[in-house]
Amino acid sequence: MEQHVGETEQVRSGGDTAAARAQDAVDGARLNLAVAALARFGGRDDGGVSRETLTSIELDARRYLIDQAAGLGCDVSIDDCANLFFRRRGQADLPPVLTGSHIDTQPVGGKLDGAYGVVAALEVLHALNDAGIETRRPIEVVAWTNEEGSRFGPGAMGSSAFVAPAKLAGYRESRDVHGTSFGEALDAALAAAANVRRYPLGHPIDTCVELHIEQGPVLERAGIPLGVVTAIQGVRWFSIALTGTAAHAGTTPMEVRSDAMSAAVSLAQRLYAFGAEAATPSGLRLTLGRWRVEPNSINTIPGKVEFTIDVRCVDEDRLDAFERGMRVAVAEVDRGWPGTIEVNTIFARGTTRFPDAMLEVIERGCARAAAGAGAAPPLPVTSGAFHDAMHLADVCPTAMIFVPSRDGISHNPAEYTDPNQLTLGAKALAYVVTELANR
Amino acid sequence: MEQHVGETEQVRSGGDTAAARAQDAVDGARLNLAVAALARFGGRDDGGVSRETLTSIELDARRYLIDQAAGLGCDVSIDDCANLFFRRRGQADLPPVLTGSHIDTQPVGGKLDGAYGVVAALEVLHALNDAGIETRRPIEVVAWTNEEGSRFGPGAMGSSAFVAPAKLAGYRESRDVHGTSFGEALDAALAAAANVRRYPLGHPIDTCVELHIEQGPVLERAGIPLGVVTAIQGVRWFSIALTGTAAHAGTTPMEVRSDAMSAAVSLAQRLYAFGAEAATPSGLRLTLGRWRVEPNSINTIPGKVEFTIDVRCVDEDRLDAFERGMRVAVAEVDRGWPGTIEVNTIFARGTTRFPDAMLEVIERGCARAAAGAGAAPPLPVTSGAFHDAMHLADVCPTAMIFVPSRDGISHNPAEYTDPNQLTLGAKALAYVVTELANR
Repeated sequence: MEQHVGETEQVRSGGDTAAARAQDAVDGARLNLAVAALARFGGRDDGGVSRETLTSIELDARRYLIDQAAGLGCDVSIDDCANLFFRRRGQADLPPVLTGSHIDTQPVGGKLDGAYGVVAALEVLHALNDAGIETRRPIEVVAWTNEEGSRFGPGAMGSSAFVAPAKLAGYRESRDVHGTSFGEALDAALAAAANVRRYPLGHPIDTCVELHIEQGPVLERAGIPLGVVTAIQGVRWFSIALTGTAAHAGTTPMEVRSDAMSAAVSLAQRLYAFGAEAATPSGLRLTLGRWRVEPNSINTIPGKVEFTIDVRCVDEDRLDAFERGMRVAVAEVDRGWPGTIEVNTIFARGTTRFPDAMLEVIERGCARAAAGAGAAPPLPVTSGAFHDAMHLADVCPTAMIFVPSRDGISHNPAEYTDPNQLTLGAKALAYVVTELANR
Repeated sequence: MEQHVGETEQVRSGGDTAAARAQDAVDGARLNLAVAALARFGGRDDGGVSRETLTSIELDARRYLIDQAAGLGCDVSIDDCANLFFRRRGQADLPPVLTGSHIDTQPVGGKLDGAYGVVAALEVLHALNDAGIETRRPIEVVAWTNEEGSRFGPGAMGSSAFVAPAKLAGYRESRDVHGTSFGEALDAALAAAANVRRYPLGHPIDTCVELHIEQGPVLERAGIPLGVVTAIQGVRWFSIALTGTAAHAGTTPMEVRSDAMSAAVSLAQRLYAFGAEAATPSGLRLTLGRWRVEPNSINTIPGKVEFTIDVRCVDEDRLDAFERGMRVAVAEVDRGWPGTIEVNTIFARGTTRFPDAMLEVIERGCARAAAGAGAAPPLPVTSGAFHDAMHLADVCPTAMIFVPSRDGISHNPAEYTDPNQLTLGAKALAYVVTELANR
C-alpha cells in the first residue's frame, strides 16, 4: 500500500490532466438514457425492476450489456461464477483498474441499485473514447453475479467467489424456491455465453472502484451530491431466545409468571438504551428487526420469544463494547426471572476500511466534479449496506463513491436519484478510474 | 337479593340436614369413573380430549349424558341454543336450582375443563337418590353449548343466549374453519334431539352454582383443595398499533429512524412497570400476548408493530387507573418519536361479583366437605377466566366452586386434578345445591 501511494504521487500531474478530460467528457444525457435502457430488462409498471440473478431476464440484460461493451471496443470475458468483464485495453498489459457493480435486483427493486454502477462505468469508457484518451493500464468494467442474494443465498456470490474461489463449490448447492440450484443456473448462464472468452476466477486486479447509490438518507439530508465512502460498517447479527412458560392470561397471578415477553421487553429496553448511548459518538446502528412470539395469543402469556439483533458500526471497539454490554444485560435479565435466555451469533463481518491513498483520489475526483456543477464538496460517509467492493478490498486497493437516494429508499420501485446527481457520480468515477489507470 | 337472604335464614336448619346427608352420599369412586367415561368421547392417546362443540363426537357425548340423566329419573329438555337440561323434580313446581357447566373442549383440551362440573352435578343427583332426599325446588343439571368458543366464536354462546336470547340470531352466523355456520350445526344438533322436550331460551332459574377446575395455580400453591369464588375478574382488551417507517438497518442512522419496535418496547416497558406496581395490592394481571411486526426481517427497521393488552382485575377502579396510565404512556411515547400510535379497545367486560348470600352457603358446604376429609378450610379466590356462571349472574343469584389445577395447567392434555380433590368438589356442590333447593 505504501508503495502504491508512492507511485500515485509520481504520476499525479500527468494523470490529473487525462482524468480531468475524461471527467469533462462524461455525457449526462447519454448516461441517464443508458440507465433507462437497462431498466427495461425486468421493468415494471410501477417504475421498479424485477431482475433477479441468472433469470432469463437477467441473461437478456447481460447480452445487451455485452453488445454495448463490444460496441465500445471492449474485450468481453466471463469467469467461472459468470461475472462479466468488459476490458478496455491499456498501453501496457498490466493488471486492470476494475470498476462496476451488479445488475441483479431484489424480487422487486429499483432501477439503480447496482445497475447504476455498471452503466456509469460503461459511460466512463464512452467518455474516454470520445476524449481520445489512452490509459497506461487496462480498465475493466465488471457486472458481478448475484449480489442481492434474494434468489440464491448468500449475497455477493460473484465478488466473494472471485476473491476466494474455493467458495464456489458451496455456492453451487444453494437453491431457489423452485428447487433450481445456483450451480444449474450458473451452468446455463455460462453455456449461453459459450462464445465469450473465459477467465479463471480471481485474475489479478490493480485497484477497484465501485459507484453506487447510498440507499440511505445521509447525503440527501446533508444536501450533498457525492459521498466518499471511507468504510463499510462491521456488522454482527445475534438471535436472542427467551423461554418461559405459556399460561392463561386470566388465571395466572403476576408473581408466579414466567413471561417471556416481559423479559424480552426488559432486555430490549436495555439494548436500545445502550444503542442510543453509543449512536451519537460512533454512528452505531441497532435494529431489533425480527420477532417471533409463541403462542402469540391475546389471552395467553408468551411462553417463548425470539428476536434478532443487527448492530453495525465502523468502530470495531464499539461493536465489542456493545456485545459485552448485551451479554451483561442478558445476564441481568436472566437473573431476574425464572425462564432462560439463549444468545446465538448468526453472522459477523468486520469493518472494511478503504485505504487513504484511494480515498484521496476519490475525494479529488468528487471535488472537481462537484465544483464544476456548483455543488457542495463531497462528504465522507460510511456504508451501512454490504457491497461487492467489500470483498475486493481483501485483494486490492478499493474504494466506493455514493450518490444520494431520495428519502433513503432502496430495494423498492420508489428508489430514485436525481439525474444530475447520477451524472456527477459518473464524472467522479471517470476522473478516479482514469487517474488510477495512468499510474 | 335481600328478600332471598331472608328466605335462606328461615329454612336453614332443615336445609342443613338434607345438605349434609347429600354431601355424605357423594361417591368419589363413582364420580371419578364417570369423569373417565365422559372423557372417552374424543379421548386422545396423550390423555387429552378433543371434543369441540356440536361435532359428532360432542353429539355422541350428549346422547350418553341424556341416557345417564334418564337413568337417574330426570326429565330431559333442550333449548333453542341446544343447552341441555336434566331436571330432578322437587316437591313444588318452582324455578329450579341450576348447576352444571359445559362438555365442549378446546381443539386439544383436558378431561376436566367444563366436563367435571357436569359430571359432578349428575353425581349430586345420584347422591340425592341414594340418600332418598326430596328437595323443595327442582334441581336442574345443565350442559351449556359452546363455552370454549374455539370452533365458533365467541365463547359462552349457550349461557349468554340463555340470558339474552336476542344474541342467538347473531351467533347463528358465526362460522367454523370449514365454513359451517353455528346455525347449521345447531339445527343438526336440535334435529338429533327431536324427541327431547323443547324449552324456550331463558326459562326461570332460582339460583345457579357452577363447579369448575381453577385453571390457575392459586389453590395448588396454597395447598387448599376448595376455593370459594368471590368474583370473576373484569377484563379489558386493547390493541396498540405503532406505525413508523421501515428502512435498511445498515444505511439508516439512528437519529433519522422512525423505529416502530423501539417505540413499542418503550411503551411496553412502561405498561409492565405500571402492571407490576398495581399487581401486588390488587391482583391486577397484565399480558401483552400477541405481537405482529412488519416487515419482520433481521436487517430492516420495523415499520409497524401491533401488540395486544389483556388486563384483568376484580377492582374496576384499578382497571380504570391502568387504562388512564396506559393512555398517558402512549401519549408520552408518541411525543418522543416521529411515528404514530393508535389504541383500540377490542373488548371489555366488567367484574362479576357473586352475592354474599351465595358465598355464605358455598363457604359452609366447602368447609364441611374439607373438615370431613381433614383438609384445609376453603380459600376465597377470584376467577381470572370467564365461565358460564358469569352470564347467569345477570339473571339469578350465582356462585362458583373451584378445585385445584395441577401446575395451573388447562386447555392442555396435561390438565389434571387429584381424584380426592374432585370428590371434595362434588361433596361441596351436593351440600350447596341441596340447601339452595330446600329454600
